[in-house]
Amino acid sequence: MNKLKAVANRLMTMDNVHILTHRYPDGDTLGSAYALCSALQQLGKKAKVITSGEPAKKYDFLKKGVKEQDFQREYVVSVDVAASSLLGENEEEYKDIIDICVDHHGTNSIEAKMKYIDASSASAAEIVFELLGLMTGVNLNKHIATCIYTGLSTDTGCFRYTNTTPKTHLIAAKTMAAGAPWEMINAEMFEIMSPARIELQKLVYNTLEITLKGKLALIVVTLDMLKKAGVGDDEVEGLANIPRRVEGVLMGITIREKEDGVFKISVRTNEGVDASSYCQTFGGGGHVAASGCTIEGTLESVKKALIDEAQRIL
Amino acid sequence: MNKLKAVANRLMTMDNVHILTHRYPDGDTLGSAYALCSALQQLGKKAKVITSGEPAKKYDFLKKGVKEQDFQREYVVSVDVAASSLLGENEEEYKDIIDICVDHHGTNSIEAKMKYIDASSASAAEIVFELLGLMTGVNLNKHIATCIYTGLSTDTGCFRYTNTTPKTHLIAAKTMAAGAPWEMINAEMFEIMSPARIELQKLVYNTLEITLKGKLALIVVTLDMLKKAGVGDDEVEGLANIPRRVEGVLMGITIREKEDGVFKISVRTNEGVDASSYCQTFGGGGHVAASGCTIEGTLESVKKALIDEAQRIL
Repeated sequence: MNKLKAVANRLMTMDNVHILTHRYPDGDTLGSAYALCSALQQLGKKAKVITSGEPAKKYDFLKKGVKEQDFQREYVVSVDVAASSLLGENEEEYKDIIDICVDHHGTNSIEAKMKYIDASSASAAEIVFELLGLMTGVNLNKHIATCIYTGLSTDTGCFRYTNTTPKTHLIAAKTMAAGAPWEMINAEMFEIMSPARIELQKLVYNTLEITLKGKLALIVVTLDMLKKAGVGDDEVEGLANIPRRVEGVLMGITIREKEDGVFKISVRTNEGVDASSYCQTFGGGGHVAASGCTIEGTLESVKKALIDEAQRIL
Repeated sequence: MNKLKAVANRLMTMDNVHILTHRYPDGDTLGSAYALCSALQQLGKKAKVITSGEPAKKYDFLKKGVKEQDFQREYVVSVDVAASSLLGENEEEYKDIIDICVDHHGTNSIEAKMKYIDASSASAAEIVFELLGLMTGVNLNKHIATCIYTGLSTDTGCFRYTNTTPKTHLIAAKTMAAGAPWEMINAEMFEIMSPARIELQKLVYNTLEITLKGKLALIVVTLDMLKKAGVGDDEVEGLANIPRRVEGVLMGITIREKEDGVFKISVRTNEGVDASSYCQTFGGGGHVAASGCTIEGTLESVKKALIDEAQRIL
């Protein structure tokens, strides 16, 4: 905590701060950035969030608590950005002038004058929460609480992912007590789907196939289905969890057509079945419970190869 | 808390205890009952959970931490049971001999020598957690933590429902720290679906209809679909939330065929649209955001009536 206190002290001396997010900004990088921006403005400083790419509309509520300010930039802080390349369109302008880097990725490779990395935090927002607590004069108001809750809930899949810790819950409790509209946040983050995305879900459910005596489930996402539903590449997330949800299934496979004859395979397993060694057979890899690979062929040949190999190990 | 301390003291004097759950036992009533049973056994007492109806297999892990004991019943405690009728098959035998009733339903009408009702608790498990903390010699071991986490997570939809409070999160943090296998619990409670249930989901997604310029979404569940998928009446839960998840939708309606010519309607609304007054038009009612009614007719006539009335108010 001493090192974090040093970051807090440093921030207290700064003014005219640009706060950077990673590209394809999500709830954690945005929540962390807007919480920090809000806190600096609370202290009478000028601060501004510089996102990499336009955030999705569902995050609009995070902006609402900060003032738009025009000023000459003096300092730069990055939050939840693990590597310069993830600054995207802002990489060239900012990569060599970052004063403070706050992140929860153990692999962080950002060059910055001062770095605070805590890989045990489920979200960057949890670190920012602790940081703001160390800055004299910062008050956990409703807007900051909203930003922090959004970050921690997004990055833990609403307290379900492996990275969740007791600390995540303790900070959730404090931000709820400070007025974070947590019901709205969770609905926006996890429930609401565009009509196109729900159409895709419908098409994908129709491809669900359960085989090998109920131990293997597969779904297919083709380019044609994406086109028919009218969804972009960024709206496909979350589908890969569907096959593993079937009771009794040990391995859930998502076959996603990337281009004609090329399929990206996501494998999710239950009860210790090794997805990584399975995917290695096809030149891929990953973690025990979640891995991937790319296979070329026709949908039918790819499916057959996957089922044959699954039959061998299940 | 003084009243709860009195309950704790009373429990400390008891032995040979039967602990009752409500019928169609869920994660909260079972988690609360097994946590209490485990605690009493820890104190060297004899205790046994008497469920009303066989719990679903997914709850089997809750039983594992308690010993099966044979004894002559001396005392009876009910947890999460709001009314005698909810004791189901155990009503006749037990309804007049309940010593302690612990519950979080404000409407509780159980007759008991001692009652502790806290309607501000999201789950009965939260009350049991506090109760065990007041019983000298009870140690929050892994099994008790597992039971408590299961109760609070089940009853709050994994921290998403309106009833969730900062206290829910604080207790979640403590039970996680005490070793509750929260990932497995949430997977079992919220992710895993039987093949039949997922088949029903597939059929239901195919009925999704978005109308009135995207403001109304409807799904249909027919008896024929239940039969085709092979699911029981108890596996239909959760479907009513699907239509409201569509972005832009103000009202989501689920039309469920109960018998030939009779349809049960569930209405869920967003952004303050009054589901209750809408359902009153059809002789039903409920809450602003969630209401229901029953309409007779053909599927087509029922759907038309619902859309016409929705068009009037949206």
